Amino acid sequence: MEEKLHLTIDEVHQLAKEALLANGFSDQHAQAIAENVTSGERDGCASHGLYRVLVCVNSLRSGKVSADALPIITTPAPAIVKADAQGGYSLLAHRLALPVLIEQTRKTGIGALAINHCLHFSALWMDIEPLTEAGMVAFAFTPSHAWVAPAGGNRPVFGTNPIAFGWPRKDRSPFIFDLATSMVARGEIELYRRAGKPIPEGWGIDAEGKSTTDAQAVLDGAMLTFGGHKGSALSAMVELIAGPLIGDMTSADSIEFDKGTGSSPRGGELIIAIDPDRFLGDDREQHFSRAEKMFTAIESQGARLPSQRRYQARMRALEEGLDISKKLYDEIKALSYSG
Amino acid sequence: MEEKLHLTIDEVHQLAKEALLANGFSDQHAQAIAENVTSGERDGCASHGLYRVLVCVNSLRSGKVSADALPIITTPAPAIVKADAQGGYSLLAHRLALPVLIEQTRKTGIGALAINHCLHFSALWMDIEPLTEAGMVAFAFTPSHAWVAPAGGNRPVFGTNPIAFGWPRKDRSPFIFDLATSMVARGEIELYRRAGKPIPEGWGIDAEGKSTTDAQAVLDGAMLTFGGHKGSALSAMVELIAGPLIGDMTSADSIEFDKGTGSSPRGGELIIAIDPDRFLGDDREQHFSRAEKMFTAIESQGARLPSQRRYQARMRALEEGLDISKKLYDEIKALSYSG
Repeated sequence: MEEKLHLTIDEVHQLAKEALLANGFSDQHAQAIAENVTSGERDGCASHGLYRVLVCVNSLRSGKVSADALPIITTPAPAIVKADAQGGYSLLAHRLALPVLIEQTRKTGIGALAINHCLHFSALWMDIEPLTEAGMVAFAFTPSHAWVAPAGGNRPVFGTNPIAFGWPRKDRSPFIFDLATSMVARGEIELYRRAGKPIPEGWGIDAEGKSTTDAQAVLDGAMLTFGGHKGSALSAMVELIAGPLIGDMTSADSIEFDKGTGSSPRGGELIIAIDPDRFLGDDREQHFSRAEKMFTAIESQGARLPSQRRYQARMRALEEGLDISKKLYDEIKALSYSG
Repeated sequence: MEEKLHLTIDEVHQLAKEALLANGFSDQHAQAIAENVTSGERDGCASHGLYRVLVCVNSLRSGKVSADALPIITTPAPAIVKADAQGGYSLLAHRLALPVLIEQTRKTGIGALAINHCLHFSALWMDIEPLTEAGMVAFAFTPSHAWVAPAGGNRPVFGTNPIAFGWPRKDRSPFIFDLATSMVARGEIELYRRAGKPIPEGWGIDAEGKSTTDAQAVLDGAMLTFGGHKGSALSAMVELIAGPLIGDMTSADSIEFDKGTGSSPRGGELIIAIDPDRFLGDDREQHFSRAEKMFTAIESQGARLPSQRRYQARMRALEEGLDISKKLYDEIKALSYSG
């Protein structure tokens, strides 16, 4: 059994923030990153939790991310916000631009936020949850590094290219999903490789384009999208709308920029928000009750709504705190002294 | 071999329009429907081609659609257009609202069009292609009838719920996909049933929720989404944003409204348009060339871009005209005299 430490949520946040500050991140960036990884840890998403602090510090030491860039927020059109992260992590730009997006969207009914020139590792559900808290419907998209082959192809073109969607619910946690358009997350294949176990058929192909269950061969070859040509089409869409449309890199550009340093993907993120009040006016409650009826129809047959496991983990963490791997704790703590 | 007739595209259009007019559709509605089914036939999409004329006339005779409703176009917010089809087919409302959406989106950068209170059968690629011709990026979503079970469930909740996306390309046909979030189209299962052939595993479940290859059992039970829980999440999104968000029916509401008449689904459609010029200004060409680089990377490895087969069929039809089933031709012709 791996040794664990029990921490409160505040202690997790402090652990992350201290390590980031010690390595030169500005207070604003350290705060935004620490909040993000703490939310991941709190919700039981280890892949977007504390270990990201190690990646952030590595990216900084590789010279791939700015420690203190101040984002520039502009509004080039009545329903568009641009947040130029200027080479920093996306999170501070996101935090500064979100109130502007919300204010605009209340006026126009629908609005878009492009976060540009950032390094990106945030789970997209974290980026849209605040919009659902403001009563809005929200979408988010971001490319990553080119690791995934198109359907019918044999070489990487796409990133893992997640799509997230959020729907606000009265007095309940929002309906939110955040799905990679790749069959699985890259980290999952990494775990199989480390464990020396074969991966399931269909996750990827080797460098010759042949289907394989060898995790290392897929990491050297190409991952596949979920859902065959349909998932592949959606992945292409994410490249286009969160890359060229907003004036930023594709996953192919990003991995070229990375030059093998293993840093977070560099590029952009597109967030779209819709204010239901501008569609529905006084009839919002009546129509939103149709959505609740659908959720009931899903759950009453034993099917699950997305994010429910995450919300349960959150509730537990808020009440009882969290168990953190001692090894990870020690690694992050050590960063605070080697910064 | 089935007997065929060779028609020009204009003759296909005239055949459709005459049958629709003879059965009482107003000139505007007949024109919009005839153009739509002619485009389907032209692009080799028989499922959205001439045979839809039979369905339209059947829906009219069942009292499920208005023959002459005049759509009401409003703009409740600077970036939102609503087109109330008032119980008619979606196509006339779409045609009248699209110029308003384009004009608004050029101002605001992003815009949304809700088509409400319509019967809907149009392929979504037809609804967004005019936006790509205007240089815009576009999305479309619509629910249908509740035929599809959520992942982990066993009873229909969702429609076949298509998602379409379009990206404009200079001097080329646009990048467009239009995918059902169900594993296959319902019509495909119908074809297996008529042929008495078993369907592939994974397309659907019987009324007890058990996996089956019996086409009739799936038509009586539930279809499944593509891509497991990810496709199911996307299908739920389509219900929410093209149903309650725009103040219209879900697929469950629609099938209840239908009362077994086999009419086209009733409800709404959501179209989102983005003007890349408002994101990119003078840098549009530079960034759009990144998209072309991605398309080249896909095609150079032998993978296909979506819609290519459709564009080839279109080219052939424009040059050579079309072969139409004589049986279908006679059935539609007969409608012109029985209206």
